[in-house]
Amino acid sequence: MSGSNRYDVTDWPLGNPHDDIGEVINSIIADVKARQTEPDRNDGGKPGAVIYIPPGDYRLRTQVLIDVSFLRIEGSGHGFTSSSIRFNVPEGERPGLHELWPGGSRILVDIPSTQSQPESATAAFRIARSGMPRISSVEFSDFCIDGLHFTGDGPGGNPENSYVNGKTGIYVADANDSLRITGMGFVYLEHALTIYYADALSIHDNFIAECGSCLELRGWGQASKITDNLIGAGFRGYSIYAENHGGLLITANNVFPRGASSVFLSGVTRSSVSNNRLHSFYPGMVVLADDSSENLLASNHFLRDNEPWTPFLAVDNGLDDLHGLVRISGSHNSVIGNHFSEVVDSAGIRPAGATPVVIRVDSGRDNYIATNHVVAMDVASRSNDSCFEGQVDALLATDDSHDLVITTVQVDAGALRTTILDSGSEDQVVADRRDNAVRATPAIPSMRADASSDSPLVLSVLRGAE
Amino acid sequence: MSGSNRYDVTDWPLGNPHDDIGEVINSIIADVKARQTEPDRNDGGKPGAVIYIPPGDYRLRTQVLIDVSFLRIEGSGHGFTSSSIRFNVPEGERPGLHELWPGGSRILVDIPSTQSQPESATAAFRIARSGMPRISSVEFSDFCIDGLHFTGDGPGGNPENSYVNGKTGIYVADANDSLRITGMGFVYLEHALTIYYADALSIHDNFIAECGSCLELRGWGQASKITDNLIGAGFRGYSIYAENHGGLLITANNVFPRGASSVFLSGVTRSSVSNNRLHSFYPGMVVLADDSSENLLASNHFLRDNEPWTPFLAVDNGLDDLHGLVRISGSHNSVIGNHFSEVVDSAGIRPAGATPVVIRVDSGRDNYIATNHVVAMDVASRSNDSCFEGQVDALLATDDSHDLVITTVQVDAGALRTTILDSGSEDQVVADRRDNAVRATPAIPSMRADASSDSPLVLSVLRGAE
Amino acid sequence: MSGSNRYDVTDWPLGNPHDDIGEVINSIIADVKARQTEPDRNDGGKPGAVIYIPPGDYRLRTQVLIDVSFLRIEGSGHGFTSSSIRFNVPEGERPGLHELWPGGSRILVDIPSTQSQPESATAAFRIARSGMPRISSVEFSDFCIDGLHFTGDGPGGNPENSYVNGKTGIYVADANDSLRITGMGFVYLEHALTIYYADALSIHDNFIAECGSCLELRGWGQASKITDNLIGAGFRGYSIYAENHGGLLITANNVFPRGASSVFLSGVTRSSVSNNRLHSFYPGMVVLADDSSENLLASNHFLRDNEPWTPFLAVDNGLDDLHGLVRISGSHNSVIGNHFSEVVDSAGIRPAGATPVVIRVDSGRDNYIATNHVVAMDVASRSNDSCFEGQVDALLATDDSHDLVITTVQVDAGALRTTILDSGSEDQVVADRRDNAVRATPAIPSMRADASSDSPLVLSVLRGAE
Repeated sequence: MSGSNRYDVTDWPLGNPHDDIGEVINSIIADVKARQTEPDRNDGGKPGAVIYIPPGDYRLRTQVLIDVSFLRIEGSGHGFTSSSIRFNVPEGERPGLHELWPGGSRILVDIPSTQSQPESATAAFRIARSGMPRISSVEFSDFCIDGLHFTGDGPGGNPENSYVNGKTGIYVADANDSLRITGMGFVYLEHALTIYYADALSIHDNFIAECGSCLELRGWGQASKITDNLIGAGFRGYSIYAENHGGLLITANNVFPRGASSVFLSGVTRSSVSNNRLHSFYPGMVVLADDSSENLLASNHFLRDNEPWTPFLAVDNGLDDLHGLVRISGSHNSVIGNHFSEVVDSAGIRPAGATPVVIRVDSGRDNYIATNHVVAMDVASRSNDSCFEGQVDALLATDDSHDLVITTVQVDAGALRTTILDSGSEDQVVADRRDNAVRATPAIPSMRADASSDSPLVLSVLRGAE
Repeated sequence: MSGSNRYDVTDWPLGNPHDDIGEVINSIIADVKARQTEPDRNDGGKPGAVIYIPPGDYRLRTQVLIDVSFLRIEGSGHGFTSSSIRFNVPEGERPGLHELWPGGSRILVDIPSTQSQPESATAAFRIARSGMPRISSVEFSDFCIDGLHFTGDGPGGNPENSYVNGKTGIYVADANDSLRITGMGFVYLEHALTIYYADALSIHDNFIAECGSCLELRGWGQASKITDNLIGAGFRGYSIYAENHGGLLITANNVFPRGASSVFLSGVTRSSVSNNRLHSFYPGMVVLADDSSENLLASNHFLRDNEPWTPFLAVDNGLDDLHGLVRISGSHNSVIGNHFSEVVDSAGIRPAGATPVVIRVDSGRDNYIATNHVVAMDVASRSNDSCFEGQVDALLATDDSHDLVITTVQVDAGALRTTILDSGSEDQVVADRRDNAVRATPAIPSMRADASSDSPLVLSVLRGAE
Repeated sequence: MSGSNRYDVTDWPLGNPHDDIGEVINSIIADVKARQTEPDRNDGGKPGAVIYIPPGDYRLRTQVLIDVSFLRIEGSGHGFTSSSIRFNVPEGERPGLHELWPGGSRILVDIPSTQSQPESATAAFRIARSGMPRISSVEFSDFCIDGLHFTGDGPGGNPENSYVNGKTGIYVADANDSLRITGMGFVYLEHALTIYYADALSIHDNFIAECGSCLELRGWGQASKITDNLIGAGFRGYSIYAENHGGLLITANNVFPRGASSVFLSGVTRSSVSNNRLHSFYPGMVVLADDSSENLLASNHFLRDNEPWTPFLAVDNGLDDLHGLVRISGSHNSVIGNHFSEVVDSAGIRPAGATPVVIRVDSGRDNYIATNHVVAMDVASRSNDSCFEGQVDALLATDDSHDLVITTVQVDAGALRTTILDSGSEDQVVADRRDNAVRATPAIPSMRADASSDSPLVLSVLRGAE
């Protein structure tokens, strides 16, 4: 047993951290617990411990079980590099690569998984403790969790592009308080973080990319924050998912593609998605589902454009362009001051010839949508064998484009009393004017005359009245 | 004397850090100072030092005095757990608790205080140095300051619910520059942080809860930031307080109850409260007092609902529902793009039968209020013996509610020339139409007919014209 | 060769880190590389290393060259103190100063530079590696890079006020991924950070001040974030500069003077500048140049006032008051929900008698400007020999001021189809009403009568029609 509360996995006498860091950390946790006594004489507590992982490769064959509060596991490097790009490098170029794998303080998740095992059994780190109080102040900081390989059925027959491998980085099973995930890197996991029953959780300044789903807040929870992260899920999953949460603050994140949704909220109330930069290749970027109500979507930058990278050209999330970049099924939400850029190839719009929808309210009542600016451009799709250059190229290209006819806001018949202000021209807002309050963005006076000619705008107006 | 600038409190030869870490740290600081010489030959400086606190319990009986720049005190765990919940656990359940106290790198503040002593004398950490230059770059990072017990007159006769004990975590007495508080935990202190005369202060990513007041920026100051914190004060105090500050940025915080105010600004100018999630059980959530001017309140999510937790049901902050969730006494402020949810039991409104006010301008001139969305619901109060479940329950409940008649904006006669745009219906904005510019949120056309019947809206209109 | 991946510069057998930390770090990097083998058996990678710099003074005479991924260099203190104030202390007061120099883990940059050498040759840290993959996850954390002295032609003949010395802190030459700069301090460098070809870069929670330019993202890049920093450049340079970037998120920064521009974007698309506090003494605070398009400027607080500190009273950035605090040359941008305070001495306006412009669109098309609140005040300039007191004084002064006639938005003839909503009164918005959509902020009814008299407002209206 150690006499200190600071541990280094490379110093621990039991096990070999490079061969199985899971066994080593579990052994350390056992030591922490064995040494904890809480006489409550003199207000003495159970202070927990810090377990340090220096930079290096550490295979994890045994799941780590954390059932003690105030445990911090920290490394010295989030170690992200793109495995996705590497796995799509032509065979002939591989010998010239500087390195093949992520690095830093790197956990190689190597728990054998079968389809019959639940996520909780195969996660690299499992936090579980029932009873009272809830497990508190577990912290993960500055290391890398690498799932190594995807193994499913991937685009173009490449399993490494499937985002499926049955692996989870961190799985929190029981009610918890004040957990903290900071400075971490996650890569090539089917689920990076799955957290049930969170209170006052902080997920801050992490790099979570090339995972099937990145953040999943499940069960229910409150008063948490997801802030200042670089995040990007695979095409099958969510970059940020939450269900039955209240008072969640999602802000200052840079969420890049792919992600079936950038942010998907189910039954989430009184929460904020504000001030993020969101980029996606598909509709359904932000979804307020299952009566998500009284939420604020504000000051976000939305960009939806075309997939530029060759291996994923045939991939999408199954939603058509009428779905909406933002989709609302809930009441009393506020959508204020967002910028939307929809920059797509009109030849690829589905259903063919449809007018894409940007904000769609399908049910609920009394939603408020104001001062949103929608830019819609029709560009010819271009693809590129280089992921980075392709994306930058597409991002910076604004010249070779033409205006695209768009529906900025569509309110379905099942939604009651939506207020829509300055978020699209008269013809861009498709909503029954008797049951909704619509104030169109004022038109440019010199263009009003055009509207009486046979311009696309007129067609749009007519369609809006259908 | 040490030969290095990195110290560990458990390695220091003088004193016992577990019995009195204050004595140990003061002894280390004396060593740092004794070793500093600044010949200015070769641009040589006084680099300061880092003092490390491993996870563990460290009683503090002697105040730490920091009068040297570039000192960093750091631990390995913010160690928050809810002492408030623990102190309200029935006696019979206590033996079953996993742990009783906060943890991590935990300071147990045990300086005897009497009512006659000023806060500066009883604070755990005191930063004080006059002369030039101002003390700079003192840093606190990743440890826990625990005040242990409240001792005042608390609700239900429980002193532990009083938020009073005369203890302060960190007290900064003199003008200072570039201070940094990051990753810290504060719990059960009457004042977590009291900081005078701050310039370019950063309070970032901390957990500051169950303290009488959390952040108090006093005296005057400028160009500071309070960002990305989880904060919640007691019912008597402030979650965030600042006076005579300019250029303060308060953003990305998740501020939970209770707190007499979430944010109270006195004589604060040219500052921002933007993009926060704010939750309170009382009016007066954000107060711009004493001629606070040219500030921006934008993209915040405000929720005011009913206290759900049994021990605090009888508690409030003394303000009635006409006070306003936001109260402005100042000029040229901007209130733009906020979401407000007021979800209360109409039976508890005070004065009885009053229409609650959301934004109230009581004095000043030329304030600008635009595109704010107010949701007001009448719900039956429910209380719960479990703090966490009670809050989540209340947060997620949106079904059993009815619309509540509300005043979204009220401009008093003493306030001049307020502009109010799209922030409430014609009847929800109580302001003299001759002296203020009001553009009501457009009404739903199909509901206009209702307004001529005997609906509550009509009563509200009549009242608004009083 | 070391057997661990954690290094301490003070433990390394080769070189003297206090005399030349550059030589020591290069020697460590050589060791890291020599020890790296990547058999790819067992998915084994090249994990990198962490190099620790304890608090202390470390002269850097040799440029550090980083050509290995996953290298983290970390200290224990950002060590900022104001060298600018110190260098302007009267000679007689110097002996009384507590300290003369920045501190913490402090690098003293002492690479001899000549005007003929490029920035890449004289930078303290140079990151350069061509080939594939891009260099990834290099991290700088919690130390100070101090350029010591400015040596150019400064205001009042003081070279230390010139912001010129040919020194750069960190220079990134080649395409890179997932770099991370956190908790750092930069002071007295002509260029703090110059980063080419960045992808998923994070610059978070740093203190970057008293540098000629602070952040320069050059070449091109994408999906990066500049968040939660305290930043302030010299009068010649930029606080934040980016060119040809897409998907850049600039948020939660407190940007103080001086800075020729707080944020200058050239050819930047689909990016966000939101929720910052920006303070400047000159026009051109935020510039969207060279067809910067589809960007969002939202929820920012802008303050432009007069220089209060004596040594810099005669300095400006050469732009006159018609330039605009925000200047837009690009299309499809959104400017939503910002607060502007222009607080200047009308006697100093240039050209004399001009009406200052706040938002100016000089070219491009389809920009959208909504719900911005502009406050304009005429105050008598005051100067102060104390930098801190002078600034706080000016910041807090709101009393001795009079309304200033202002143009809130000006659209030049070369810009097409700008939409301007609720961002200024009819006379404050100078834009051709036929080619732009203007909805003025509603006027205060009782003041409308004044407009028919010979008030300054009328003159403004007439001028707007020129």
